[in-house]
Amino acid sequence: MVVTVIGLGLIGGSMAIDMKNSGFASKIIGVDSSKINAEFAVNIGFVDVVEPLLSAISKSSLVIIATPSDSAIALAQQVLDNIEHQVVIDVCSTKVQISEAIKNKKMRRNFVLTHPMAGTEFSGPWAAKANLFTSKVSILCDVDKSDNEAVLLVEKFYDMLNMSIIRMSSIDHDIHAAYVSHISHISSFALALTVLEKEKDEKQIFNLASGGFDSTVRLAKSSAAMWTPIFNQNKNNLLPVIDTYIEKLNLLKNSIEQNNFSELKYLIERANKIKRVLK
Amino acid sequence: MVVTVIGLGLIGGSMAIDMKNSGFASKIIGVDSSKINAEFAVNIGFVDVVEPLLSAISKSSLVIIATPSDSAIALAQQVLDNIEHQVVIDVCSTKVQISEAIKNKKMRRNFVLTHPMAGTEFSGPWAAKANLFTSKVSILCDVDKSDNEAVLLVEKFYDMLNMSIIRMSSIDHDIHAAYVSHISHISSFALALTVLEKEKDEKQIFNLASGGFDSTVRLAKSSAAMWTPIFNQNKNNLLPVIDTYIEKLNLLKNSIEQNNFSELKYLIERANKIKRVLK
Repeated sequence: MVVTVIGLGLIGGSMAIDMKNSGFASKIIGVDSSKINAEFAVNIGFVDVVEPLLSAISKSSLVIIATPSDSAIALAQQVLDNIEHQVVIDVCSTKVQISEAIKNKKMRRNFVLTHPMAGTEFSGPWAAKANLFTSKVSILCDVDKSDNEAVLLVEKFYDMLNMSIIRMSSIDHDIHAAYVSHISHISSFALALTVLEKEKDEKQIFNLASGGFDSTVRLAKSSAAMWTPIFNQNKNNLLPVIDTYIEKLNLLKNSIEQNNFSELKYLIERANKIKRVLK
Repeated sequence: MVVTVIGLGLIGGSMAIDMKNSGFASKIIGVDSSKINAEFAVNIGFVDVVEPLLSAISKSSLVIIATPSDSAIALAQQVLDNIEHQVVIDVCSTKVQISEAIKNKKMRRNFVLTHPMAGTEFSGPWAAKANLFTSKVSILCDVDKSDNEAVLLVEKFYDMLNMSIIRMSSIDHDIHAAYVSHISHISSFALALTVLEKEKDEKQIFNLASGGFDSTVRLAKSSAAMWTPIFNQNKNNLLPVIDTYIEKLNLLKNSIEQNNFSELKYLIERANKIKRVLK
């Protein structure tokens, strides 16, 4: 199968590597607005060739839009206006806006909304790697709005990446993503900003980071190009979660300030219940 | 060398395992207020025998106090009142209070304040494991208040655990620990409380946790018995850091609320600078 990958970063690049290694794709055509990224992807060999968007999709059976979620919306519309038989997916971390943006397109049923929940805090084609998606979860949204055959092909694709597949509506997706993923990034960015402001002695951050800081702040390395549009697109779900988060911080703070150890202990023990729902 | 380990949890137990494996200790005597922990430690074999406190320390050259930081203070005083030649260390995550508590003890110079910066979110003797400390940092505080020979023995001990050693005052330690380690735990506990309150559908937390949530919330599994006294003992340093953290969250929140993308992007890019100081 010939596949076009638009956006040769961490996600698009890692998908290309696995499609090559598994034989899922006989040929991969890359599309990227950055010449540097495109050249790197060809040199490394995870795409066979780089072409302009329209010529690439005309030769493909599957088109993967793997750009940040702001440019993905315009691309999704443009791609849908220029396909005949191709199946198209996006990989955005927010789903309602892109779902709305394509809902009236004639070829809407060829599009499958997906969110493969995998990644690292690194970005760009140099961060791409084999088996990035293994044992992770991919979410397919609003599958009733896609053709069965398109959904079957996309499921075959995610099976090849060794992902579990979950289906939900794009509305539910964005609510859950705000609670579980987006607030974690907000929390981590704020932590990095706090420590960088408060701790002038950077050597000591480095020395003391093994005390839990390193894992909590890992996400603060994530790119602004990716996360600015995600927070924007999901602001209605995210803002109330940030409010609740600040409320909980104030509960912890007040119990410490007032030497209310039984309350502090109670809050920590309630937080411990997260064990039950995590791997 | 005969060593007494008081508190046979994650830290004390893991130290005992490495002391055995390396031959650093010829005999390890365990002391624990919990019969269950003590029996487990003997059965697993990382201590040779369990004895009452005073008989244990009378037979030892090195005494390690590895209990939570509230009981460690009383124990440090009690041990110092009952030694002649022994070297004593604690492993508390806060250092000013314990330093103050022992400052007038006759045998103060036999005591070395230490904080080995290693651990997992698990606790108890069943969490103990070999090589927990390898390549991590141990902080020795106020070494000018300890005998050189005592410090040398403690350095030999941490060398055996393959740790790097840093020296600083207990006052500096507690300030840096609030910035780097303690606020990470506060942030993680608050995150767990938020998600557990907001996300009623626990299955979805589990499904979506790979989107960054799992690493950020890992510390929220940490025990209340350990962290309640740490937050209490370091409250003067910690409270202003929590305030700054809430300020930064509000900056992020306001930029999202007001669609101020350039500010949001700027904040994320500033947070990204944490890359520079982390491994």
